[in-house]
Amino acid sequence: MPKKTKKASESFVTMTELVLPNDTNTLNNLMGGRLMHWMDIVAAISAQRHSNRIVVTASVDNISFTKPIALGNVVTLQAKVTRAFNSSMEVHIEVWAEDIPSGTKYMSNRAFFTFVAVDQGGRPIDIPEVEPETAEEKDLYDGALRRRQLRLVLGKRMKPEEAHELKSIFKLDQ
Amino acid sequence: MPKKTKKASESFVTMTELVLPNDTNTLNNLMGGRLMHWMDIVAAISAQRHSNRIVVTASVDNISFTKPIALGNVVTLQAKVTRAFNSSMEVHIEVWAEDIPSGTKYMSNRAFFTFVAVDQGGRPIDIPEVEPETAEEKDLYDGALRRRQLRLVLGKRMKPEEAHELKSIFKLDQ
Amino acid sequence: MPKKTKKASESFVTMTELVLPNDTNTLNNLMGGRLMHWMDIVAAISAQRHSNRIVVTASVDNISFTKPIALGNVVTLQAKVTRAFNSSMEVHIEVWAEDIPSGTKYMSNRAFFTFVAVDQGGRPIDIPEVEPETAEEKDLYDGALRRRQLRLVLGKRMKPEEAHELKSIFKLDQ
Amino acid sequence: MPKKTKKASESFVTMTELVLPNDTNTLNNLMGGRLMHWMDIVAAISAQRHSNRIVVTASVDNISFTKPIALGNVVTLQAKVTRAFNSSMEVHIEVWAEDIPSGTKYMSNRAFFTFVAVDQGGRPIDIPEVEPETAEEKDLYDGALRRRQLRLVLGKRMKPEEAHELKSIFKLDQ
Amino acid sequence: MPKKTKKASESFVTMTELVLPNDTNTLNNLMGGRLMHWMDIVAAISAQRHSNRIVVTASVDNISFTKPIALGNVVTLQAKVTRAFNSSMEVHIEVWAEDIPSGTKYMSNRAFFTFVAVDQGGRPIDIPEVEPETAEEKDLYDGALRRRQLRLVLGKRMKPEEAHELKSIFKLDQ
Amino acid sequence: MPKKTKKASESFVTMTELVLPNDTNTLNNLMGGRLMHWMDIVAAISAQRHSNRIVVTASVDNISFTKPIALGNVVTLQAKVTRAFNSSMEVHIEVWAEDIPSGTKYMSNRAFFTFVAVDQGGRPIDIPEVEPETAEEKDLYDGALRRRQLRLVLGKRMKPEEAHELKSIFKLDQ
Repeated sequence: MPKKTKKASESFVTMTELVLPNDTNTLNNLMGGRLMHWMDIVAAISAQRHSNRIVVTASVDNISFTKPIALGNVVTLQAKVTRAFNSSMEVHIEVWAEDIPSGTKYMSNRAFFTFVAVDQGGRPIDIPEVEPETAEEKDLYDGALRRRQLRLVLGKRMKPEEAHELKSIFKLDQ
Repeated sequence: MPKKTKKASESFVTMTELVLPNDTNTLNNLMGGRLMHWMDIVAAISAQRHSNRIVVTASVDNISFTKPIALGNVVTLQAKVTRAFNSSMEVHIEVWAEDIPSGTKYMSNRAFFTFVAVDQGGRPIDIPEVEPETAEEKDLYDGALRRRQLRLVLGKRMKPEEAHELKSIFKLDQ
Repeated sequence: MPKKTKKASESFVTMTELVLPNDTNTLNNLMGGRLMHWMDIVAAISAQRHSNRIVVTASVDNISFTKPIALGNVVTLQAKVTRAFNSSMEVHIEVWAEDIPSGTKYMSNRAFFTFVAVDQGGRPIDIPEVEPETAEEKDLYDGALRRRQLRLVLGKRMKPEEAHELKSIFKLDQ
Repeated sequence: MPKKTKKASESFVTMTELVLPNDTNTLNNLMGGRLMHWMDIVAAISAQRHSNRIVVTASVDNISFTKPIALGNVVTLQAKVTRAFNSSMEVHIEVWAEDIPSGTKYMSNRAFFTFVAVDQGGRPIDIPEVEPETAEEKDLYDGALRRRQLRLVLGKRMKPEEAHELKSIFKLDQ
Repeated sequence: MPKKTKKASESFVTMTELVLPNDTNTLNNLMGGRLMHWMDIVAAISAQRHSNRIVVTASVDNISFTKPIALGNVVTLQAKVTRAFNSSMEVHIEVWAEDIPSGTKYMSNRAFFTFVAVDQGGRPIDIPEVEPETAEEKDLYDGALRRRQLRLVLGKRMKPEEAHELKSIFKLDQ
Repeated sequence: MPKKTKKASESFVTMTELVLPNDTNTLNNLMGGRLMHWMDIVAAISAQRHSNRIVVTASVDNISFTKPIALGNVVTLQAKVTRAFNSSMEVHIEVWAEDIPSGTKYMSNRAFFTFVAVDQGGRPIDIPEVEPETAEEKDLYDGALRRRQLRLVLGKRMKPEEAHELKSIFKLDQ
């Protein structure tokens, strides 16, 4: 029996947050941990949308924080599932920061989280495959295998010499 | 003038949290994003201890979430600076989960966060070097260079062929 | 000099929230007050997008709560400015509730909030007019005058006999 | 069998809140949504007191926000049930804002919320009637029918031409 | 010039809180620390009312927790200043717990907090004296001296042999 | 059968908190109630460690607040069980405040909380005795009896003339 497939776009989620005083550090900028908390929620909802299951966070890839986000700014997080592997999914997240009165807006972060779909007892359960449609979705789908091997090697669950796809990470765009 | 040095142990911080209802998902387990929020706070305090400066989160390395942590559990987070690079520091974090009434305790996660020390205007500022003393501190100190190159390559700020230390990641213990 | 105009669609905002334990009552359903808190935030961001100003809540129209929203559900709020009056704006909000594992989704509420754009000293300041494009945006634009008169009459700032537009509320769709 | 009656004063509740940083907007004033959250809680407790039942928010009437309430101010909310209709109740709420060090205090808002009393399964259940005693309680009791018709018309559950009591809203005090 | 006097009743404050999931422990009962947090806020507002000043918590007397307060219960806190000493005030707090659907209500705790009135720079500043009117207010006023000596002795700021009033604590009602 | 004994040091817990905006009063200093909330959590975890049981707060001894703790400071709380009495335990808590950038650190508070160990039904249950090892642990163990009598007398559950140990409180170190 062929496995069910869902379009990448069906898992798209947008979340908007206002940076409040308790989210900020001594310099009145958003704390990185608070932003990761929001990333985890938007990505979990996206993974739920793809799998129609309860999901649990399995891993977070390297995240960089380059520009500060200030108190009172609006943060927009957008998440979409890139690819599924049996019961796990990779979710791509983009974070935009916006100072509305001054009219400035810029992409603040990109990140990849993975989730596992589970049943009510917490056991992993199979999920639909992802069907990418746009060029960007296809790129993210193709890169997912490489990023997965890096995760497995870093987590010591795969030997580096077996990570054939990973080798290209040093040549290709992530 | 020789640069100031501080012992790794001077930046050691322990934080203890109780898992409350709002920290949990539908399965009554701690959400990954909430745990990362705590990791960021304990690591920031450790980086402050080393640098005696305001610090901002610069990056987070790959984190895996393997075992669920339940509502009512006690979470202990321990952080220590492993190595400094001009104005930035790598912090190592270990997370322990504990179900006290049943007497079970296990290491739930390890993670590496990096922070940048800044002045009141948010500009990077030089910090002391780290002096590792124990065997574990020395291992973490030595591995910091390799992990830093991986971060720079993943963040596209270093060419893979220049990351000489990184090559060993596929042979050596992380 | 002709006043600036912005399209209604430029103020569109989507916010997504997960119903957590502290948001719920004894029946494990979302409390109305918590939902109004989210409505106020999404509508304020929409009003900021239209005016590029700091905004303050001026009034909230009648809101009905008909179906309960359960713990663990995903709540999607969408807001768009319908019409501007000097320094004030009416914002239309739609709230969708979703139980993702069971695949059910329904519109839970519609509401109208008004905001006033202010300068740093808190004084009202003129804002662009709204240019509706779709049929729905035009309907909302047209009805805004009627709803404004109802607000003024209920707030005792307009005499009922002067509220010419309002009379039609008893015949026309709100 | 005659239905049970309770005095309006038996449902009186006072709640006091301190405006904290996370309750405020960029101008350091209380956000409207946070105030509505408090209104919902005080009104729900009042409705519980009258009905001795679990209650759920059914609707909120038009609310105006005229004067800002500042960080550090004390907000006093007072709620009392005005009238019951089978399983639903209307609650009247008055909000007072106070800057204690400067000795200023003023009524900031009035609002009407309605609640439905439900059993453990969430089904509506009959409640006692309200017995107004003071002149103000009697005025509120009398006006409740008119406000109820306005709610039903605005919610499209009553035809305007059948709302006989409502017609007087344009002549009489609300 | 005679010092200003204010009636005890002018500082009376009532606060009402609903016990939410995050306020409770594993047994679904209110945590003691959360209740003390509420006590501190209601008592601080009462001390502000008496002094018309910013106030800071100076000390908390022994508090006993005897009966558990359950999730969903309503907690009513009432505070009143008992007596002033130069820049400090003692506040008496009574806490009532109520399970409204079952109609049970009981006094859960009594406590005494002291506060110091300060100016904008945080320096202690003189406040009005308290004028007790009712028999209960007079009892609390009289006992305040004894309780103050106990605090000073326990805080090692008074020698036990100088605490003349305190001796009676072993004979008289607290 | 001899009762089980545990070392005092086995119940040692360290908790670290960062003072955030919502934890502070108008002077930007930590509110006493928030600090007591943290004290209760760290002490409860310590009591859980000693008893391996669910614990509930039974009482709090007199606490003094002498020096303000500022926004952005790091607060370290350390707790250890001093002595057990059947099902109840006394926990000693020390609170340290630290302004890391300026390098200042001082002990802000000491406090004694008592907890009762309970089973799943909330009934008190016997716990191990405490074995003090260091000189400080022995002092705290010896003083526990005296402090317990003071609690019982203040709570009117012991007659002052029967509190033989208590008499020494006026001569000995607390």
